[in-house]
Amino acid sequence: MFEELINKSGKWINSKGPDSDVVISSRVRLARNIGGFVFPQLLRDQDYEKIFAQVKKAAAKSKALKNAHIVSINQLDDIDRYLLVERHLISYDHAAADRKRAVIFSKDESISVMVNEEDHLRMQVILPGIQLQECWRKLDTLDTELERELAFAFSPEAGYLTACPTNTGTGLRASMMVHLPALVISKDINKILQRMNQLGLVVRGFYGEGIEIRTAFFQISNQISLSQTESEIIVNIERITRQIMENEHKARASLFKTNKAKIEDNIWRAYGLLKSARTISFEEAITLLSSLRLGAETGIIKVKLKTINELLISAQPGHIQRISGKPMPEEARDIKRAELIRNKLRD
Amino acid sequence: MFEELINKSGKWINSKGPDSDVVISSRVRLARNIGGFVFPQLLRDQDYEKIFAQVKKAAAKSKALKNAHIVSINQLDDIDRYLLVERHLISYDHAAADRKRAVIFSKDESISVMVNEEDHLRMQVILPGIQLQECWRKLDTLDTELERELAFAFSPEAGYLTACPTNTGTGLRASMMVHLPALVISKDINKILQRMNQLGLVVRGFYGEGIEIRTAFFQISNQISLSQTESEIIVNIERITRQIMENEHKARASLFKTNKAKIEDNIWRAYGLLKSARTISFEEAITLLSSLRLGAETGIIKVKLKTINELLISAQPGHIQRISGKPMPEEARDIKRAELIRNKLRD
Repeated sequence: MFEELINKSGKWINSKGPDSDVVISSRVRLARNIGGFVFPQLLRDQDYEKIFAQVKKAAAKSKALKNAHIVSINQLDDIDRYLLVERHLISYDHAAADRKRAVIFSKDESISVMVNEEDHLRMQVILPGIQLQECWRKLDTLDTELERELAFAFSPEAGYLTACPTNTGTGLRASMMVHLPALVISKDINKILQRMNQLGLVVRGFYGEGIEIRTAFFQISNQISLSQTESEIIVNIERITRQIMENEHKARASLFKTNKAKIEDNIWRAYGLLKSARTISFEEAITLLSSLRLGAETGIIKVKLKTINELLISAQPGHIQRISGKPMPEEARDIKRAELIRNKLRD
Repeated sequence: MFEELINKSGKWINSKGPDSDVVISSRVRLARNIGGFVFPQLLRDQDYEKIFAQVKKAAAKSKALKNAHIVSINQLDDIDRYLLVERHLISYDHAAADRKRAVIFSKDESISVMVNEEDHLRMQVILPGIQLQECWRKLDTLDTELERELAFAFSPEAGYLTACPTNTGTGLRASMMVHLPALVISKDINKILQRMNQLGLVVRGFYGEGIEIRTAFFQISNQISLSQTESEIIVNIERITRQIMENEHKARASLFKTNKAKIEDNIWRAYGLLKSARTISFEEAITLLSSLRLGAETGIIKVKLKTINELLISAQPGHIQRISGKPMPEEARDIKRAELIRNKLRD
């Protein structure tokens, strides 16, 4: 199955969304648990099997999950587990856990349902560009479909019950993946990160959880899901994201006004290095792809965002090893990564 | 005339010589003075005119200088003066001096005669690769031709008389321009430079006199021209150059054995940057061209040595400004240089 995965990319990465010059993708997820079972951390294997059976049955009746992949994480080797993490289909914790667990995801990878992660179900919809409302609409439909078959643990006072209190209530987390190179160059990013913390938002690197790399790719999400409706959370995050987007646009305009030659040079050099390097670390690749994306976003370089997005995913260590079909030491990965990038940019 | 110069390059730079993977060019020059006149530093303008007239007359009868360019340096603007320096047709001092002076050089730029530099005549032959003997043969012919018309100051005891005692005797200086990237990377270059000093040789950067840039391009020449015959000097320098060449070959082999991936990556990255940069300093250009030349010398990259050699000349500030037709601040030169390199490497 994973042969098929690496030969294409998810809908959220290969299709153009609104405002994708700054916003790479929008994601909404819901945490749900099934009444009558303990939370995953203490769940016995036999109860997991019962839950998994129920979820599979419900999924089979869901239109949203028609023809979806159903994958037991336990049956995968490390490379395939991290491949799923790198494609944002499962969390890093879900890959690393040692309990029985699974994931169900749609062919186009826009919908995924983790089974037995921190909660019994973690379902998400991810779409390109700013499409938080559309994500929520789709996810709400899926939630309704599944709730017809599954008895979700719910309290009229607290809302949906979850293993961790930060998720209780709506069980909803909304997040946006954004590319803010001009704010990073101008250093205004620090003020913005501070302000977002004050607004109760979390900002992490795009390649968050597990691998921490400081780049101009960020993920903005809400911290608490209680005492706000789903729509309120979503409208709030979308509004803040649009403000940040405006800041980034202003920072780009100012950068190109004061420092055009330097910035263009930086972009073209990144392109030159990506097209020619024979060995390249993951961190350097992401940094150069960030410059290249700024070039594509601003029309300086005619490279499709789709191509760059796909490289942002496939340059990751799990993908490199899956493409090569074997575990590889870092040095060999760096050589393979350089080759992959060269071939992709030659198209 | 200089329009014509910048559209082509000298024979020593655009044609392939023996062992040109390490030796870029060979050069021999002779210092001569005309009896009955004081040395240039104290020479009056009217006497200079007499000397210049004599030299022109002698040149007109020389086969070697048939159709040669005759240029009064005083009539040139700064850009054209440094253009001649950058093409190795005149010395930096000859460009910078404030006395009346001239240069006569052959169409193919392999022969040049400076008039009223430190000595009344400084004549040189420069050829690609290791061709010191051939340089000397041609220069000896020219010297004989000119001596038929000009009364060179000569003492049976001291030999040819020159303004500076280090040139007295044969008046000969032989030099080789070499590219030693592997010896620089391995740091063995330091030992070699030391040994050459002990052997009475001078080693300077390729872009010596005036602009000092530390690169892997070196110029090796003899320090004294007394108490050795012309042939002895030349045989000696050629022998030492061949030893250094052997050292460089061994260093390359060892480098490619132990560090192939890194070196190839470095070469390809240099190529990528040169083909894509939008602004590039002279120093960075030379450094990257050195890596690219190593790639071409070792067959890793299919770029002609001729192309790289021409860029090593035309990337210099005087050429950049001559091509643009006007004096330019450094920032504008760096942009023009990047453009020139991109266009040249696109061929």
